[in-house]
Amino acid sequence: MPSIDTPEAPLKSSTAPPPESKSSMGLVVDVALRVLLFATGLAAIIVMVTSKQSKMIPVAPGLAVPLDAKFNHSPAFIYFVAALSVACLYSVITGVLSVLALMRGGISTKLQFHFVMFDALLLGIVAAATGAEGGVAYIGLKGNSHTRWNKICNTYGSFCFHVAASFLLSLISSITLLLLVWLSLYVLSKKIARR
Amino acid sequence: MPSIDTPEAPLKSSTAPPPESKSSMGLVVDVALRVLLFATGLAAIIVMVTSKQSKMIPVAPGLAVPLDAKFNHSPAFIYFVAALSVACLYSVITGVLSVLALMRGGISTKLQFHFVMFDALLLGIVAAATGAEGGVAYIGLKGNSHTRWNKICNTYGSFCFHVAASFLLSLISSITLLLLVWLSLYVLSKKIARR
Repeated sequence: MPSIDTPEAPLKSSTAPPPESKSSMGLVVDVALRVLLFATGLAAIIVMVTSKQSKMIPVAPGLAVPLDAKFNHSPAFIYFVAALSVACLYSVITGVLSVLALMRGGISTKLQFHFVMFDALLLGIVAAATGAEGGVAYIGLKGNSHTRWNKICNTYGSFCFHVAASFLLSLISSITLLLLVWLSLYVLSKKIARR
Repeated sequence: MPSIDTPEAPLKSSTAPPPESKSSMGLVVDVALRVLLFATGLAAIIVMVTSKQSKMIPVAPGLAVPLDAKFNHSPAFIYFVAALSVACLYSVITGVLSVLALMRGGISTKLQFHFVMFDALLLGIVAAATGAEGGVAYIGLKGNSHTRWNKICNTYGSFCFHVAASFLLSLISSITLLLLVWLSLYVLSKKIARR
């Protein structure tokens, strides 16, 4: 492999030619991960928002009233939808920027650093949302005998299934964001090692 | 600034001399943040574990039984303590390594990359724990009328105060981890830009 000595090249602008194809290989994986982040994030939002379930709950012998279970009954679920929406929007913007960089043949080091910084921030936000949703959903599933919070999943099965599915999807989103951070770090470490 | 052309130097070993004092300035901030992470993490664990509160709860006129509120009544709080314990242990190990690197006068690029990778992983774990604890604590504070989960903070005030304090402390831990990731990225970007 020839070692081309162009130390300043990747810092000038993003239109600088890539030193080799390994960088663009990393960029392809980067775009794929951002597409995965968008897909899982959007799916988690849709599954959560469409979780509404209506049931006839008996309040007295011979009398039942329809009671809903909706995601916006819980502040944790509202935060979850908000956080995943931000992550989705972010994945679209950075995905487009990554594709543009890929078409130009490479990504500037500066842009990549900004990507990792925001990836890490989003990782924190999405992980917190996943944790909050999971913590509340677990009470819905198992209840808590000490505080006498009754489980609701025996009644609202379909609602709980939606919540569980969106939890798994947002867990995948969190892991995808972590992988994005790790991938960028790996590419940057190769950039440092090459020089 | 003289541009010293030693491309392989920082990759050989951590005993390589630092290019300039800026790197060691970053290392001092790194150690300070790790100390902060340890302090907030340990405080969050202690505040959470010592949150036990016993109250006489009236179950019938003239009859009251002592009922406890403890952190290990909630799976979310147990996960919280476990995650913060891991973060504390991690901050001790990496803090010692950072101090050793500081005494040697600089940190190797390779070690720094490993630090950022694990910092990002810990960020995800601690943020999820903070979210889970916050989500459950909010139900304890406000209750949820839709699922008929009663608030408990009107009864167990001291317990809730402990939970809220540990939430704030773990929030600071999460932000510290994010700052650690950003700081390392900044130092690495300077390393790339210098060459």
